Amino acid sequence: MPDRRQIITLTTDFGEADYYVPAVKGVIRTLCPPAEIIDITHLIPPHDIYTAAFTLLCCYRDFPKQTIHMVVVDPGVGSRRRPILVAAGDYIFIGPDNGVFSYIYDQEVNSHVTHLTSEHYFRQPVSDTFHGRDVFAPVAAAVAKGVEGRMLGDEIDDPVRFNIPRPAAVSPRQIRAAVIHVDRFGNIITNITRAELAGVMSAGPVKVRIGKHETSRLLTHFAEAGQNELFFYFGSAGFLEVAVAKQPAAKLIEARRGMEVIIEF
Amino acid sequence: MPDRRQIITLTTDFGEADYYVPAVKGVIRTLCPPAEIIDITHLIPPHDIYTAAFTLLCCYRDFPKQTIHMVVVDPGVGSRRRPILVAAGDYIFIGPDNGVFSYIYDQEVNSHVTHLTSEHYFRQPVSDTFHGRDVFAPVAAAVAKGVEGRMLGDEIDDPVRFNIPRPAAVSPRQIRAAVIHVDRFGNIITNITRAELAGVMSAGPVKVRIGKHETSRLLTHFAEAGQNELFFYFGSAGFLEVAVAKQPAAKLIEARRGMEVIIEF
Amino acid sequence: MPDRRQIITLTTDFGEADYYVPAVKGVIRTLCPPAEIIDITHLIPPHDIYTAAFTLLCCYRDFPKQTIHMVVVDPGVGSRRRPILVAAGDYIFIGPDNGVFSYIYDQEVNSHVTHLTSEHYFRQPVSDTFHGRDVFAPVAAAVAKGVEGRMLGDEIDDPVRFNIPRPAAVSPRQIRAAVIHVDRFGNIITNITRAELAGVMSAGPVKVRIGKHETSRLLTHFAEAGQNELFFYFGSAGFLEVAVAKQPAAKLIEARRGMEVIIEF
Repeated sequence: MPDRRQIITLTTDFGEADYYVPAVKGVIRTLCPPAEIIDITHLIPPHDIYTAAFTLLCCYRDFPKQTIHMVVVDPGVGSRRRPILVAAGDYIFIGPDNGVFSYIYDQEVNSHVTHLTSEHYFRQPVSDTFHGRDVFAPVAAAVAKGVEGRMLGDEIDDPVRFNIPRPAAVSPRQIRAAVIHVDRFGNIITNITRAELAGVMSAGPVKVRIGKHETSRLLTHFAEAGQNELFFYFGSAGFLEVAVAKQPAAKLIEARRGMEVIIEF
Repeated sequence: MPDRRQIITLTTDFGEADYYVPAVKGVIRTLCPPAEIIDITHLIPPHDIYTAAFTLLCCYRDFPKQTIHMVVVDPGVGSRRRPILVAAGDYIFIGPDNGVFSYIYDQEVNSHVTHLTSEHYFRQPVSDTFHGRDVFAPVAAAVAKGVEGRMLGDEIDDPVRFNIPRPAAVSPRQIRAAVIHVDRFGNIITNITRAELAGVMSAGPVKVRIGKHETSRLLTHFAEAGQNELFFYFGSAGFLEVAVAKQPAAKLIEARRGMEVIIEF
Repeated sequence: MPDRRQIITLTTDFGEADYYVPAVKGVIRTLCPPAEIIDITHLIPPHDIYTAAFTLLCCYRDFPKQTIHMVVVDPGVGSRRRPILVAAGDYIFIGPDNGVFSYIYDQEVNSHVTHLTSEHYFRQPVSDTFHGRDVFAPVAAAVAKGVEGRMLGDEIDDPVRFNIPRPAAVSPRQIRAAVIHVDRFGNIITNITRAELAGVMSAGPVKVRIGKHETSRLLTHFAEAGQNELFFYFGSAGFLEVAVAKQPAAKLIEARRGMEVIIEF
């Protein structure tokens, strides 16, 4: 056994109460005993490929190179949607071809997508409703053992992508951004990055409007915030976030994914 | 260290917020450093041995042979209920003798049950309320290290079993089944299998009635379902399930474990 | 790779749905591949250092000696609060200097606290809001690889402690204790230990009053309890606990941390 065990991460909407996650882990460990399995999360809202895509975006590079990131958020399971393997940059991704890897294609210029068709590597019989156990887990185990993408199917060049929401200028002094995630603390993560705002912020103060609220207060430390004060900052994934210290800002603002955020400067 | 590390799985009602699960893991890893611990779930509803039994049934065979499945759902902890080890088929089970292994006895014709009495292997002092940490974890660690069942106590032939709910014919054209589980997606899992229905289904269409709802629509893929359409299918554990695509059918139907399901044909 | 892999445990308020926990794990595994990561819990209520401190107290000794216990419950992240490493007894603790290790200082007479200042060991750039990933995880990985505390900063002798709530005599026949935790089952854990009550209990019966309820019933086994009966017992962490068998006593009593508990004898 090498010092560096092959890691397989799991991102699913299976929840943590059912037999789905352990079945996947059991299959992987049966087929590839030395593999190490690390949970990203199993609490993706059911069928929510956008949250899955965002969550993976924010942490996939923190894992060792060659890590296999397996994603099973799969509202089209059993239908003709394709199971795929994506080799992108230093990482490998396995999951359904439903757009869940859209951010990966965006981040990694050099990616190769394989349509997984070699049923030889699947768990038999393949159920109609649980490809996590019967397709993706055994393929991930095979890859962890060294099976290469070209053994698993043919390369395709038309993987499904969703439109990544991008900030856009709506007037000479306004940018329209959007909420892309609300985290456990009720912090509101937008889709605009520090880099994208560097120019306008160097020119003067900036105001952030969201719902009926607005704030011009940019902080670096939560500890600087006043009681009940709404503020913004650049979070650990590089995006502009809106928060209230020690309170869920998302509750105050009734924020949800897709909500408009206006940056005025 | 062998290439294939001994796996111990955990199925409990401890939840994930308290010190109970990590205490169990710490004890196992202290006593048997090479053991690998994999969570099945810790979200079994408090004291619910039926959900624990069902969850284990649906995934225990997905793990490598010789895996030790430890279950701690133990409403009688501290009382005279016996702690037991079950060697059944290719697996070993450790937990309280309260019926939680009923499906295992049913599935595995050749099982041997040992009453765990060798206190030498227990963590001392044994608390009255936490046998997961003080009895089951150290015994699981001992077994993982190679201690055999006969060192741990005497074999018994009267383990506690609950009556597994079975479908039954209630008229020449009706079978009465029951809900045995509702999963995270709100899919309703019944206790009747594809094999049990193979005969009647080959003879013609079948209708499934549950609560005030019924459906004759048998699908293989969720993607085939119409908006709000109730349908049935055979799930990944082999049972007939009732669902609405991308919605929790259990909420619509107010389904709960034990609810009657009528199959008409 | 040694037989005994270095263990790093994680106790956080990150929840299990966001990218925070996997980012921490990815950083650790990238920097120290052989380390084994075990979750204590990620469901500490947001910013609640008291629950984190109590949870750690109840299980840290169950892990193998030299285990690194990393805690990230850090309402002052980004401010001037110090990141610290505590070498105490047979264990190492890493986290913010906000009192979360108060019980450890209390339990382990011989502890050394290092202010973590060697930025060489941090993940660069260090974000303002995620020291779990950028400071504590890489330092834990470094320690797991053998880097000693003195390489990481200077020893300090004034770590932040909170006042551990202690039971106190309020009359010749009364002790005032307090609720320190409510667990998943709704059992109410107080801050008074079996040892502290040994004297008064040997002298005669004892009554426990909490809110509008009281009980004189001391049980060892939940199975002895009558329907709806309130009782007390000494739990697996050594503290007096109040419960109702198979029901959440905390709901009946509306118990919450800090609530007064009177012991009369």
